Amino acid sequence: MAPPPSTAVSPVVALIVRLLTFISLLISVIIIATNTVTVTATSTVGFVQVRIRFSDFYAYRYMLAAGVIGIAYTVLQTAFTIFYVSTGNRLGGDGFTLVDFYGDKVLSYILATGAAAGFGLTVDSNRGPGNDSDTEAFLNKANAAASLLFIGFIFSAISSVFSSLSLSKRP
Amino acid sequence: MAPPPSTAVSPVVALIVRLLTFISLLISVIIIATNTVTVTATSTVGFVQVRIRFSDFYAYRYMLAAGVIGIAYTVLQTAFTIFYVSTGNRLGGDGFTLVDFYGDKVLSYILATGAAAGFGLTVDSNRGPGNDSDTEAFLNKANAAASLLFIGFIFSAISSVFSSLSLSKRP
Repeated sequence: MAPPPSTAVSPVVALIVRLLTFISLLISVIIIATNTVTVTATSTVGFVQVRIRFSDFYAYRYMLAAGVIGIAYTVLQTAFTIFYVSTGNRLGGDGFTLVDFYGDKVLSYILATGAAAGFGLTVDSNRGPGNDSDTEAFLNKANAAASLLFIGFIFSAISSVFSSLSLSKRP
Repeated sequence: MAPPPSTAVSPVVALIVRLLTFISLLISVIIIATNTVTVTATSTVGFVQVRIRFSDFYAYRYMLAAGVIGIAYTVLQTAFTIFYVSTGNRLGGDGFTLVDFYGDKVLSYILATGAAAGFGLTVDSNRGPGNDSDTEAFLNKANAAASLLFIGFIFSAISSVFSSLSLSKRP
């Protein structure tokens, strides 16, 4: 006989949301990590090539860190959920409901702050009148990465709602 | 006879956390809204006075909006909690448990993204070598406002944990 459900939503739905989180974060991390531009600047000794990388900005480094932490956590949770879906048993029993609850909550805050920090720097930098096309391409890629991180945050917030609602299903 | 408690923590504890949220957000909003600096810039026609206000930056405008929304929500919730503490009855009954849950969750995300957007812009702007002392004072005040907004976020996240745990106390 199947045990009574101990989660608020079907584990298949939970799994789909985790997979969507994973995909968003993976694409976001790839875009941030590969975001590099070579800008030609005028100096007193002539033209110099300046290489701008994502790692020159703390906001983008935090974004990358948030994305990587999110991927690691989501892969782990996806493995647990697949185990649950395939065997019908929750790994670690219902004690994991609280771990899920706090884990999902903290992760969604990390992703939210990561995306917001990226937007905070990018949006106002993008408004400068003195940006050349290379800098604009760099900022547009940063914008795309922050947007995907934000989408990942939305999915992780949905996971967090699910794991919060599951609290009341504990015996 | 007093009704059984329908919240996970004592309403007095919940009230203290709401008040701490309110105080942090109020100071943060005051600092952001009054953050103005007059910078003397060199132009082709001589020195010009440039007035920089928080509203020149989208990140700081979003910070202010987040703080104001947070204050409005926290005042409302504090009023409800005071009513609960003084009468022993929850306004709206236990249906409000879900409203609290989603409200606290959304608010904590708004405050987290507000603080992170402020930090995202400020931290990297502060690293520029060309900042004069006026600009530095402006950025330091922005930093202080973002820090207080972040403290407000931490308290609202605690409120959100409380209202999530209260879900399992519903009859």
